[in-house]
Amino acid sequence: MEKIKCGVLGATGVVGQNYIRLLENHPWFQVVDVAASPQSAGKKYFDAVSDKWQMNRSVPEGVRDLIVRDVADTKAIPTDVKFYFSAMEMPKRDEEAAMEFEYAKLGYPVVSNSSANRSVDDVPMLIPEINADHINIIPIQQKNRGITKGGFVAVKPNCSIQSFMTPVFALMKAGFPIEKLIITTLQAVSGAGYPGVPSLDIVDNLVPFIGGEEAKTEKEPMKIFGKIGEKGIILFDQIKIGATCTRVPISDGHMASVSIKFKEKIPTEEQILKIWADFRGVPQELDLPFAPKQPIIYQKQENRPQPKKDRDNDKGMAVTVGRLRKDPVFDVKFIGLSHNTVRGAAGGGILNAELLKAKGFIK
Amino acid sequence: MEKIKCGVLGATGVVGQNYIRLLENHPWFQVVDVAASPQSAGKKYFDAVSDKWQMNRSVPEGVRDLIVRDVADTKAIPTDVKFYFSAMEMPKRDEEAAMEFEYAKLGYPVVSNSSANRSVDDVPMLIPEINADHINIIPIQQKNRGITKGGFVAVKPNCSIQSFMTPVFALMKAGFPIEKLIITTLQAVSGAGYPGVPSLDIVDNLVPFIGGEEAKTEKEPMKIFGKIGEKGIILFDQIKIGATCTRVPISDGHMASVSIKFKEKIPTEEQILKIWADFRGVPQELDLPFAPKQPIIYQKQENRPQPKKDRDNDKGMAVTVGRLRKDPVFDVKFIGLSHNTVRGAAGGGILNAELLKAKGFIK
Amino acid sequence: MEKIKCGVLGATGVVGQNYIRLLENHPWFQVVDVAASPQSAGKKYFDAVSDKWQMNRSVPEGVRDLIVRDVADTKAIPTDVKFYFSAMEMPKRDEEAAMEFEYAKLGYPVVSNSSANRSVDDVPMLIPEINADHINIIPIQQKNRGITKGGFVAVKPNCSIQSFMTPVFALMKAGFPIEKLIITTLQAVSGAGYPGVPSLDIVDNLVPFIGGEEAKTEKEPMKIFGKIGEKGIILFDQIKIGATCTRVPISDGHMASVSIKFKEKIPTEEQILKIWADFRGVPQELDLPFAPKQPIIYQKQENRPQPKKDRDNDKGMAVTVGRLRKDPVFDVKFIGLSHNTVRGAAGGGILNAELLKAKGFIK
Amino acid sequence: MEKIKCGVLGATGVVGQNYIRLLENHPWFQVVDVAASPQSAGKKYFDAVSDKWQMNRSVPEGVRDLIVRDVADTKAIPTDVKFYFSAMEMPKRDEEAAMEFEYAKLGYPVVSNSSANRSVDDVPMLIPEINADHINIIPIQQKNRGITKGGFVAVKPNCSIQSFMTPVFALMKAGFPIEKLIITTLQAVSGAGYPGVPSLDIVDNLVPFIGGEEAKTEKEPMKIFGKIGEKGIILFDQIKIGATCTRVPISDGHMASVSIKFKEKIPTEEQILKIWADFRGVPQELDLPFAPKQPIIYQKQENRPQPKKDRDNDKGMAVTVGRLRKDPVFDVKFIGLSHNTVRGAAGGGILNAELLKAKGFIK
Repeated sequence: MEKIKCGVLGATGVVGQNYIRLLENHPWFQVVDVAASPQSAGKKYFDAVSDKWQMNRSVPEGVRDLIVRDVADTKAIPTDVKFYFSAMEMPKRDEEAAMEFEYAKLGYPVVSNSSANRSVDDVPMLIPEINADHINIIPIQQKNRGITKGGFVAVKPNCSIQSFMTPVFALMKAGFPIEKLIITTLQAVSGAGYPGVPSLDIVDNLVPFIGGEEAKTEKEPMKIFGKIGEKGIILFDQIKIGATCTRVPISDGHMASVSIKFKEKIPTEEQILKIWADFRGVPQELDLPFAPKQPIIYQKQENRPQPKKDRDNDKGMAVTVGRLRKDPVFDVKFIGLSHNTVRGAAGGGILNAELLKAKGFIK
Repeated sequence: MEKIKCGVLGATGVVGQNYIRLLENHPWFQVVDVAASPQSAGKKYFDAVSDKWQMNRSVPEGVRDLIVRDVADTKAIPTDVKFYFSAMEMPKRDEEAAMEFEYAKLGYPVVSNSSANRSVDDVPMLIPEINADHINIIPIQQKNRGITKGGFVAVKPNCSIQSFMTPVFALMKAGFPIEKLIITTLQAVSGAGYPGVPSLDIVDNLVPFIGGEEAKTEKEPMKIFGKIGEKGIILFDQIKIGATCTRVPISDGHMASVSIKFKEKIPTEEQILKIWADFRGVPQELDLPFAPKQPIIYQKQENRPQPKKDRDNDKGMAVTVGRLRKDPVFDVKFIGLSHNTVRGAAGGGILNAELLKAKGFIK
Repeated sequence: MEKIKCGVLGATGVVGQNYIRLLENHPWFQVVDVAASPQSAGKKYFDAVSDKWQMNRSVPEGVRDLIVRDVADTKAIPTDVKFYFSAMEMPKRDEEAAMEFEYAKLGYPVVSNSSANRSVDDVPMLIPEINADHINIIPIQQKNRGITKGGFVAVKPNCSIQSFMTPVFALMKAGFPIEKLIITTLQAVSGAGYPGVPSLDIVDNLVPFIGGEEAKTEKEPMKIFGKIGEKGIILFDQIKIGATCTRVPISDGHMASVSIKFKEKIPTEEQILKIWADFRGVPQELDLPFAPKQPIIYQKQENRPQPKKDRDNDKGMAVTVGRLRKDPVFDVKFIGLSHNTVRGAAGGGILNAELLKAKGFIK
Repeated sequence: MEKIKCGVLGATGVVGQNYIRLLENHPWFQVVDVAASPQSAGKKYFDAVSDKWQMNRSVPEGVRDLIVRDVADTKAIPTDVKFYFSAMEMPKRDEEAAMEFEYAKLGYPVVSNSSANRSVDDVPMLIPEINADHINIIPIQQKNRGITKGGFVAVKPNCSIQSFMTPVFALMKAGFPIEKLIITTLQAVSGAGYPGVPSLDIVDNLVPFIGGEEAKTEKEPMKIFGKIGEKGIILFDQIKIGATCTRVPISDGHMASVSIKFKEKIPTEEQILKIWADFRGVPQELDLPFAPKQPIIYQKQENRPQPKKDRDNDKGMAVTVGRLRKDPVFDVKFIGLSHNTVRGAAGGGILNAELLKAKGFIK
């Protein structure tokens, strides 16, 4: 099978670098276009990125010599590109949102990592194990916006919610609706991009605040758990979430301390463990290349999950949980963990693209 | 005024070292006896401790040359010692508990940092800003146990609860009873003593488990908020606490993410800030040497409190809070911080001793 | 081709765990026997190791259910085992040395990670890119010791020297003999095993001392650069090395700051870069499975090599160098880096075994 | 005695903050003027600095409400200011150098932390224990530049050299001239200011490069060991220094691994220890407030000095050394440590000002 040619918008930032790294040797997709800001445009990708390359492996051979294109210069898009990953980090969010739709109107599916279009009603925000069906909002999006050539924008949610959303959804899906969640996250520095958090703020220190993160953590699940309406996604309103988001001095991995209050029945610990062990979603059914085989891995040792030991489970795409126990205030509590730059960023975007390909939205 | 002579049981461990460090130049107390295990007994304190000395200042002059006494050899207690700080870390908790009472029966007040006697009904567990009146259980303890020479055991609670207890109590005291607390702590490695946490477990890592810590965090407040009964402290039963305790890679400082559900009225943010700003306890009224002038310091910047910048506030004895905000699930949430080896350990013990001295229990 | 069955002595320690991890899916070797101390003996490997498992991936399927054998119980050795990796960490070094030879006398090649037999004259200490020919001491060893069944002991050197030995040797081999080396190492905590370095000693701290490490760093190169004599390896005596070894708060990767004084001619920077770029050793000629394709990788960016970005180069088996520049005191200086638990421990041992297999010493 | 009024140029940066922190309650000096960039000008100091305040104690009362002055607006200088500390961090070094001399020409002694004027011949670069006599270049500087009102510029050297200069000088002064030094430094992140090192570069990582640092480390000692000539300082040329400077993930404290080759006689270890123990300089003779009583503290334990335990020795102003031992290549090697933001920055500047006051250059 010939690989589908794709491009990366914002290819020189940290998330863009992760896309480049993770797409090396991807069985379906091949990066042939790298776009970035005017400062990088015209340089070879290797030269544009070498001073700020953060990955623990070299710039892939097939991408080193690509000439970086100005993201605004859409006339220079190579003719064989079929879709784009967006990892743009523009200073102005509304320009970023508009740029993604500019590409969509040109006929390109845009699989985005950006927060700019996340709250837009007719843009699906996907965790494929949970709401793969939300891709069906795409025709509505195209109709709403007069997009005629097959383009669209689809996004992934914030990295802070990845470590608890699938375990929570698995319980809901199994017939145990949830009423309330109180969550405290411990998030790695890589979540803030580069240069991101100054080391003076985090070496031997904790920062109990990440701008905008708590609001995203409390609101984005409502869209993901929502339903498709006539004009867009209708938000779910049956769960209350209270979140505290903190930054901690580790390189990768976001952890969440989660307390759950069920709405009706309370599952036993054995039931929960079985629900998590048995849970599979659309990516697993479709056997997508980046889909973790076991989407929710439960670690029985009492001191797990731990970022260093569990973030790379199933190539960084699985959510690892542990410490399931009774909560004296709510019903149960547990610890969730996911790899923020893989599952929570570029890896999640790639899984979204794979879903869209499998379902015919990317051709 | 001549200083009161005291001793430290378990003087060579990390908590013991903190007592030695913090008592240097104490205006009321002077260390004249250092006791430890048989391995250290007979050595000069400096020699016994030098390989494992963890403090960021030298062994104080007045203690360097004291000969370490075997803690079990009570016949060798210097005659001028009036009371003891206990920082013992015996392998068996019941032996440790018994040893403290052995000293009490010999007539020595034992101001303990250990958990061994914390759950004993007639032993006061003190945070002097909250329950200074619990020292009045001491005559009952003496009677219960036939202690006739003025000895007793008084303890301080676990370090994990110090960063939220005073702020929570201040609200209760001001007329806003609390129904539920959900708490996640982020605790420094110094809380585990020495050698404590292996670096392989915590460099670039988090450990979402600390043995016994969550149970202590959920239960010890009930005793501190309790009342004196005929035979011992009667536990408070009007608050439910759910705690998750995690270990993070910082040197010092325990942080708590706290969500509060009030029982009746909900104070406004302005009210809470005023309650915290105005709060004073018995240590402040008595102007005890180790009492923080402002027991609860509120930091207005949105990214505070932070361990590196706030743990040393008022010599490590203040609790610093911040990020007071509405909780979509409960009523309000905030972040609390305290220095675990000062306020949460030796400094807290010294404040207890100062209270007991001021109230005539240590003479 | 059927895989050669092997075992791991000391399989439950951190180095043993690394062997188990790295040998999963090895093309030539298969672990069928795991031996450890009496405390672990009789348990399934998974149960024996789960509380202290430090790897960032699960215990491999093929090893989980192996029953741990007491390392001293040689009668229970499975009949199909052809050779052993030794990762023992016995309290007494001489017992460990003797145990390795006990296995050798039973006919087993022992490929060791231990320091116990490193200074023994007739035991080869191998970095296969440098002194692959030292395996020819094995017949002398067997003769010296009356080993008749094909067993022997071969060792790898200390992890602290891996980041500079190959780059230094490449220059020597290219005709630029070296007279003096002054080296300061910055070594990761994983080098100390588990529990190893207490976190209180290394969180926000450096320790400028590692017991025995400087002596190893100064002496082991003399054996590796040595020649085979009639009875054993004759030490090289043409280089003086002065080493300072420090422990730093990172998880993995040993870095070395190296100053070189040449004995005769001084190569230009261009010559050095070319020598390093072109250098290949026996493992590359034999195309051994664990051999890095490019044994010495030069990073041109001025702030490299860095542990987080370069330790995993070529699966952790390459040495990465950078910052080649003139030294105002000696001739040139550079920075070297290698992965201490891969190239510097289990990965290095596996490469040794591959060499011994390719050369017919393991069958 | 009435305190001498002073100001801080660049008062809002990290070094400026350290001056503000360390000058609180200084017995001789009182900060009455804070100057910074136009962005901060006009604000209260507390407001200008609160978002980036990095100190572990609050903004001092006496400085909180000072209105920040634009550093270029010299007409607004308060009339009672007698001298300035300079902690400017201008983008252009030559403008910074010129600005310092602008203040000097207005009659103000400028005690600078900046590197801008360090290499200027007639500007003394002071470590008062070593070259206090270099202040006698000041009249030459004033004459060279037509400064008539008593102003001048005096600087302190780079933080990277503080941990070895005094121990090395003490040996030279005692009659053991030194020929060569090979040095590797391990430097804390606070040395890079704020925002400084991105956390992505240093969490679980080392960076073996600090821009310009090695050149400073190799060259600045030549000026400090130099002599006053007719027009300026004549550089010392009898020592060769080769330096490698690395950044490590600790908050504070610069460590140096040092190898020494003596020119003539080699002192014994006992001699060296005695020389260091007995060493006193001009600050000690003058009993200056910030002078450490024991300028060189030797720690006998084999694993010291360590940043966390030794950086605060004598309020962060002492140099702590350890691990004195034979070097197989040169003669001896040792480890040096100093607090980079105290001794190596603001504390060093304050000691310089105290010296200049004691000697009549500040009145």
